[in-house]
Amino acid sequence: MNTTKNYHMSADEFRKQGKQMIDWIADYYENVEKYPVLSQVQPGEISDQLPPAPPADGESTEQIMADVNSVIMPGITHWQSPNFYAYFPSNTSGPSILGDLLSSGLGVQGMIWATSPACTELETRVMDWLAAMLQLPEKFRSDSTGGGVIQDTASSAALSAVLAARERKTNYQTNDSGNTGQLVAYISNQTHSSLEKAVKIAGIGRNNLRLIGVDEHLAMRPDLLEAAIRDDLQNGRIPFFVCATVGTTSTNAMDPLTEIGQLCRKYDLWMHIDAAMSGTAAICPEYRHLLNGVELADSFSFNPHKWMFTNFDCNCFYVADRSVLIKTLSILPEYLKNRATESGAVIDYRDWHVQLGRRFRSLKLWFVIRHYGVNGLRYHIQEHIRIAQQFASWVQASAEFNLSAPVPLNLVCFTHKNGDDFNRLLLETINKTGKMYFTHTVVDGRFILRMCIAQTGTSLAHVRQAWEMIRQTAEELERNKQ
Amino acid sequence: MNTTKNYHMSADEFRKQGKQMIDWIADYYENVEKYPVLSQVQPGEISDQLPPAPPADGESTEQIMADVNSVIMPGITHWQSPNFYAYFPSNTSGPSILGDLLSSGLGVQGMIWATSPACTELETRVMDWLAAMLQLPEKFRSDSTGGGVIQDTASSAALSAVLAARERKTNYQTNDSGNTGQLVAYISNQTHSSLEKAVKIAGIGRNNLRLIGVDEHLAMRPDLLEAAIRDDLQNGRIPFFVCATVGTTSTNAMDPLTEIGQLCRKYDLWMHIDAAMSGTAAICPEYRHLLNGVELADSFSFNPHKWMFTNFDCNCFYVADRSVLIKTLSILPEYLKNRATESGAVIDYRDWHVQLGRRFRSLKLWFVIRHYGVNGLRYHIQEHIRIAQQFASWVQASAEFNLSAPVPLNLVCFTHKNGDDFNRLLLETINKTGKMYFTHTVVDGRFILRMCIAQTGTSLAHVRQAWEMIRQTAEELERNKQ
Repeated sequence: MNTTKNYHMSADEFRKQGKQMIDWIADYYENVEKYPVLSQVQPGEISDQLPPAPPADGESTEQIMADVNSVIMPGITHWQSPNFYAYFPSNTSGPSILGDLLSSGLGVQGMIWATSPACTELETRVMDWLAAMLQLPEKFRSDSTGGGVIQDTASSAALSAVLAARERKTNYQTNDSGNTGQLVAYISNQTHSSLEKAVKIAGIGRNNLRLIGVDEHLAMRPDLLEAAIRDDLQNGRIPFFVCATVGTTSTNAMDPLTEIGQLCRKYDLWMHIDAAMSGTAAICPEYRHLLNGVELADSFSFNPHKWMFTNFDCNCFYVADRSVLIKTLSILPEYLKNRATESGAVIDYRDWHVQLGRRFRSLKLWFVIRHYGVNGLRYHIQEHIRIAQQFASWVQASAEFNLSAPVPLNLVCFTHKNGDDFNRLLLETINKTGKMYFTHTVVDGRFILRMCIAQTGTSLAHVRQAWEMIRQTAEELERNKQ
Repeated sequence: MNTTKNYHMSADEFRKQGKQMIDWIADYYENVEKYPVLSQVQPGEISDQLPPAPPADGESTEQIMADVNSVIMPGITHWQSPNFYAYFPSNTSGPSILGDLLSSGLGVQGMIWATSPACTELETRVMDWLAAMLQLPEKFRSDSTGGGVIQDTASSAALSAVLAARERKTNYQTNDSGNTGQLVAYISNQTHSSLEKAVKIAGIGRNNLRLIGVDEHLAMRPDLLEAAIRDDLQNGRIPFFVCATVGTTSTNAMDPLTEIGQLCRKYDLWMHIDAAMSGTAAICPEYRHLLNGVELADSFSFNPHKWMFTNFDCNCFYVADRSVLIKTLSILPEYLKNRATESGAVIDYRDWHVQLGRRFRSLKLWFVIRHYGVNGLRYHIQEHIRIAQQFASWVQASAEFNLSAPVPLNLVCFTHKNGDDFNRLLLETINKTGKMYFTHTVVDGRFILRMCIAQTGTSLAHVRQAWEMIRQTAEELERNKQ
């Protein structure tokens, strides 16, 4: 009999507080449009309301939730608002929240197969499901030479790709002896900053990262890529890695995968494809062509946590040859040895990424795919694209605004004709109202507005309202100017 | 009016399913001891029950939960069972699950301050609370020169430390030009494998990682460390980094922080302290001495997701000089520029780790610290240590078993006198029953049993039962042998 004191939350209390939290979340989604989308607080404003010292004695969940409502909520920028159009989305859904809750409840740490076989085997299966949904080539499947793993973010996936490429090119000697300064990687000048970060982390150095020029659609130019590779070869450097992007962050530009892939084959470079947001579109047959050329790639990654109703963090990273990735990242200390690992019959995902420990993240993805079904997911992705194209057509039809880049999917880049300062003022004026939140990019020195349409609850009505607000605010600003 | 189709889960359905999930989790904890702790399935057994293709049409949450019960649960190794004594713990608690649920519900992505000021400011505050609870030196606080950040795992924290050390030592030239092969890092031969992994990832190479010998308690020997540093200096190498461990994974050995720190000062090396599990003990005044010497360190990390009732993933990583870490990992593409960042008045945590995106992880930690209070947390940590010391005293008093290493806290390393094969058989026989789960290590070629006592629900009664089982099983095995 255990007669000791106990500060743990009782099962009854957990049931009570848990159900109140579920209601709190449901209420939140029903009222999310009442909050200012972009938090309006000033630096330090939240911090100033938080006690400088931790409480000596425990407090009730009611007290904590009172502070969530009064202190935390004003400091939230509402990513789940249907009026959130900033950056890239990070959308979620009921089934994802439930799957993630189950993962928290089970509290499983799936570093190796033995520490929860279901954590590993469900992940492998769900990743093969997604490979089928995206029509990825056979080689990316776990029942072939490759396979997929859930990582936290596209940044970590990119780093894993750079490392595997580095080791393959140097016969695994860099892991042993360190980098020698001859390796060179290639991205376009529109590629996500995570690639520069990965190259720095991997000890390659950003001076050995070539930023290849782009065409008029901001897609990487294969001719410039090949020229750069040849130039480096002539100078005794060792080209080893290219990242091609399906949907750049700035403008959703699409790099020509097939041409880049052929160059990678010709010069024996690792080809990584970063399709962080836009990869999801390829689950729709009419957008699968965006991935044409993936058959030439060595690795591929996209984020269901961006545009597939699965909450952060959930990046899906595929490799064509898992043995290279595993050989690059494998460690096996004595205290992790076990018969299943030694038998070679199982996957130990700790050897597929930087971290050792791992959460049961496939649960939320499994819940999402089963709740929506492939058809349900396709429907909502198609709807987002349809709505974004509508928005783009309004921009095109207007006399004051212009599209600033092609709109292949759900990201609309546009400007008001009045120039950079006016566009910046327009953006800040609207975001300050809290009624919607969108962001900007800069292309060729020009300040460009970005509307990314991908929140779970966003409908045509929301986007129409957004367009009206942008139009009217521009009119008012112009009137005030005169 | 939105008259389009909609496959999303309705608010009512979310309320219903969410409450059922809360009850499912509460039931799980009330019944967790009925499951075999170590999953008894064979490789492929879970996978074989999962459909090869994703469903075309959506399924009900009831169907999914039926599969959770029948397919997934047999493949779970129950980390949250009070009879789980394997590896290091990954314990959790009611308030942590609620805080994590709130994080999933809000769906905030806190890559920069502006994308949810509360996500950044609560994290900074909670990290300062923990710094106070651990009595970390002033320099590790955000209101001084340093500060803390929540990372996923101690592996990622170690990598961040190696990178910051690399850049500080090379005047940020490695980020630019790549590693030159002269840098050398030092760990003991008992240090966690994540350090070898970090050194490989960072392009240093494991040939440039020195494994320093240990004393009879398996702690790093400062004299051997200094000899290795001097040897490398004489050979024109550049020593740059030492990791000291508070509680090695294998046996919970304690490296001498002060002596190592003094050598780091003398030779200008970055000192990182990895206190992944055992750091939590330092919130108790009587164990704070374990961190003596931390005032000499450049970085420090421990995992509330191991032994502080906070569910995975939650590593707390502190640096004494945040400017070095930020300069090492900073990126600022145009689409992330904003007035708050430019003002310099805010923290953008994307520059404190490998990833760009980040979850609102401080919520669960805030819920835990407020629910328990500092006193409640101390009480349960003290209880774990008291129970483990009891177990150690039973081992010591027995004629058949011996302690194999000092027991400073909650990890007991021990062996049966009958040698390696017998100990291995004993371990496997007991784990196969599913009644408890513990693991092994190897020290000096000897197979050693490990009991790590740190699960949320583990009481003295559980540990007494475990000891009886170990003793009786050993007796039976011995009888059968004869």
